Amino acid sequence: MASSLLSSLRHSFTRPFLVRGTMSSAPSSQMLVAVVGVGLVGSEFINQLLSIPSETSPFRLVSLTSSTRTVFTPNQPITSASSWKSTLSQATEKPDYQKLTTDLAKLISPSTRVALIDNTSSDDVAGMYPRWLKAGINVITPNKKAYSGDLGLYEKILAASKESGARFLNESTVGAGLPVISTLKELVATGDKIKKIEGVFSGTMSYIFNEFSTGAADGPSFSSVVSIAREKGYTEPHPADDLNGFDVARKLTILCRTISLSPSSSSSSRTSLPSLQSFASVQTTSLIPKPLEGIPTGDEFLSRLPEFDADFDKMRKEASAEGKVLRFVGVVDPVKGEVKAGLEKYPVNHPFATSLGGSDNIIMFHTERYSPRPLIIQGAGAGAAVTAMGVLGDLLKLI
Amino acid sequence: MASSLLSSLRHSFTRPFLVRGTMSSAPSSQMLVAVVGVGLVGSEFINQLLSIPSETSPFRLVSLTSSTRTVFTPNQPITSASSWKSTLSQATEKPDYQKLTTDLAKLISPSTRVALIDNTSSDDVAGMYPRWLKAGINVITPNKKAYSGDLGLYEKILAASKESGARFLNESTVGAGLPVISTLKELVATGDKIKKIEGVFSGTMSYIFNEFSTGAADGPSFSSVVSIAREKGYTEPHPADDLNGFDVARKLTILCRTISLSPSSSSSSRTSLPSLQSFASVQTTSLIPKPLEGIPTGDEFLSRLPEFDADFDKMRKEASAEGKVLRFVGVVDPVKGEVKAGLEKYPVNHPFATSLGGSDNIIMFHTERYSPRPLIIQGAGAGAAVTAMGVLGDLLKLI
Ligand SMILES: NC(=O)c1ccc[n+]([C@@H]2O[C@H](COP(=O)([O-])OP(=O)(O)OC[C@H]3O[C@@H](n4cnc5c(N)ncnc54)[C@H](OP(=O)(O)O)[C@@H]3O)[C@@H](O)[C@H]2O)c1
Ligand SMILES: NC(=O)c1ccc[n+]([C@@H]2O[C@H](COP(=O)([O-])OP(=O)(O)OC[C@H]3O[C@@H](n4cnc5c(N)ncnc54)[C@H](OP(=O)(O)O)[C@@H]3O)[C@@H](O)[C@H]2O)c1
Repeated sequence: MASSLLSSLRHSFTRPFLVRGTMSSAPSSQMLVAVVGVGLVGSEFINQLLSIPSETSPFRLVSLTSSTRTVFTPNQPITSASSWKSTLSQATEKPDYQKLTTDLAKLISPSTRVALIDNTSSDDVAGMYPRWLKAGINVITPNKKAYSGDLGLYEKILAASKESGARFLNESTVGAGLPVISTLKELVATGDKIKKIEGVFSGTMSYIFNEFSTGAADGPSFSSVVSIAREKGYTEPHPADDLNGFDVARKLTILCRTISLSPSSSSSSRTSLPSLQSFASVQTTSLIPKPLEGIPTGDEFLSRLPEFDADFDKMRKEASAEGKVLRFVGVVDPVKGEVKAGLEKYPVNHPFATSLGGSDNIIMFHTERYSPRPLIIQGAGAGAAVTAMGVLGDLLKLI
Repeated sequence: MASSLLSSLRHSFTRPFLVRGTMSSAPSSQMLVAVVGVGLVGSEFINQLLSIPSETSPFRLVSLTSSTRTVFTPNQPITSASSWKSTLSQATEKPDYQKLTTDLAKLISPSTRVALIDNTSSDDVAGMYPRWLKAGINVITPNKKAYSGDLGLYEKILAASKESGARFLNESTVGAGLPVISTLKELVATGDKIKKIEGVFSGTMSYIFNEFSTGAADGPSFSSVVSIAREKGYTEPHPADDLNGFDVARKLTILCRTISLSPSSSSSSRTSLPSLQSFASVQTTSLIPKPLEGIPTGDEFLSRLPEFDADFDKMRKEASAEGKVLRFVGVVDPVKGEVKAGLEKYPVNHPFATSLGGSDNIIMFHTERYSPRPLIIQGAGAGAAVTAMGVLGDLLKLI
């Protein structure tokens, strides 16, 4: 059964291959896909993957893993968007990443590649990337942990990828489906020089400040805007997890490393960017009022936030008096050697004021070539559908 | 010599390749590059290509062709940014695209691929794409001719690419180095539905209307703005070649075909877009005043353009009275089945009014996933450096 199925799979991906003018038949690659993490993004990713018509799809979904269960079915790939959930929920095997690594590595051949998609936000799963890459398994993820965490892990990932040739792609870690990482990689790889990247990188922060600061001297209180954002599901259950700015610091760390430590970066682009030990090394100005630090629940946090409304109102008034709005932005500045996340003021006619709305991200690349006017990318920077699209887009880049 | 050089080339691109857990040595691919057209974009492309450090570059530049000369040196790739021009100008061979095809095809092997870069605006060169693709040669170009011209040629290109597996990439045909085509392809390939694409696609038109129409009732005359644009080198020598809107119609044709006829497009994305016979099928509203049609020289054209300043002024006043600006835009609307290029009015707080400047392009993708707020890409849409970057970016996608 196994071998006949594999041979029929191979058959369907055989296409003519031209060698020195003669047509010969060589198998083009198929890509076996293993998904770890089937939450919002994971589920949407699987559905998008399975909606590629199977006759034209080079992908075969061979493994699913949640935090409690795992299935591995290389001989009978998962094809049904309506039944994969029950297949997984009926599984009895527990996740075992060592075994998954060995099992997947065995499937690799000149005509068969393997990609592992990490749709968790787990540090443990992120810690597996070096092993997966070393085993020749390509790794794709929207999970920021590995790329914004400890520099040692990141360096192991780079080394493992270099050793085996397996690739890691992480478009959705910054701006979700927006082409941020790929654009940055292309600028760097083609020899452009990054002068400054500046953007609104957090959908939550975008929503909060688009509502709170419009250029007028007055408006809704800061705490009321945060409460509404939480009700709408735009914040984490505990809003301090957004207001601390760490999400932005993580994204800046990823951009920074993409510039200075990516395989494609030239020596010229390496100039004077700090080699961040982790996202904690980013100069981040938290919006959590000092006295509210460490409050354990979101409810208590929100009940006390109004005590600080006057402080935020004062900042808004000051900005307004200068003809400016407040925005929580991230900046990567290789010229100054600066990487920082915090609240900044922008003129009311600046794109961060005029063009932003909802919970959009906006990212400006100021470069040697895109100068004096930057390259700008804008749009939804969160949401399962666009995030999964970025992940699937990465998978398509491997084909 | 040839074989020792080739084997040393191969050696430098050998990297460990993992098969079923064991390390074996298989050559990873090298890419031989032939450049046709060494004008502004072509020269810049060559310089960017040659500035990738040769130790890490998978590319070898093996052929250059201008409109009068050609060199083909697979045994001694061109490596010097300072001497390739003189190498070409000292060449005695005339361009012969049949011979080039055969010569390049002979170099293809499992470890060696070939890419031909067309940096001309020639219809003749564009007409060669099906033959090149059929021979297994990848084709990359900023030249809009093939992709916006006769549908028959486009279909031959698709068929040839499908037959051999060689790829064609044309990122720089729309928005130069901006990630427009790649973003559109990814939206389509991952199953998003395009509702509308709307943008300022011509740098020339962008400059002209950013200067001419700011929302105020008055301003500089249309003819004076066009004259200045021409002096600054933003227009073609004959400004009518910009004002006819054909450049925008060509770009819309390319977007349209990328949605409905690309290998990755799903049946759902095919709905109701007209299958354009060529860019001439786009509903294009020319800005050339009727009585000035067919005027042979740019100078005469410009000397008579002031006769029509009052007409343009009237449109500006009308727009201003509605709180709007004038912009020359392109629209691809699969919902209405409409593809059109022409002058439209936008509110003064619309990104086409607030965010644009200089000769920037701006492109909005309204899709099922990017809704109600679109994905926006903005920045310089012309210029040799950014255009060449888009071309080199395409080449990097093949690796
Ligand atoms: N949602 C967005 O808009 C967005 C945007 C950009 C990036 N991201 C990133 O995308 C990732 C997924 O986000 P999400 O919104 O889909 O989160 P989610 O709904 O919470 O899903 C995460 C899933 O990961 C699973 N998981 C956790 N630890 C695991 C482990 N060790 N092994 C296997 N599965 C494990 C959880 O499984 P159980 O349910 O079984 O515990 C959960 O279903 C995160 O890294 C997030 O930061 C999300
Ligand atoms: N420049 C931009 O900002 C920009 C932006 C987007 C797209 N593009 C596209 O990029 C392409 C190149 O633009 P460019 O600005 O570099 O134009 P260019 O400076 O005029 O260069 C075009 C070159 O093509 C050569 N050529 C013409 N016919 C040829 C043939 N049959 N065989 C070989 N060479 C031939 C010409 O050679 P000779 O000099 O020997 O006649 C000329 O040097 C065009 O398709 C253009 O539409 C340009």
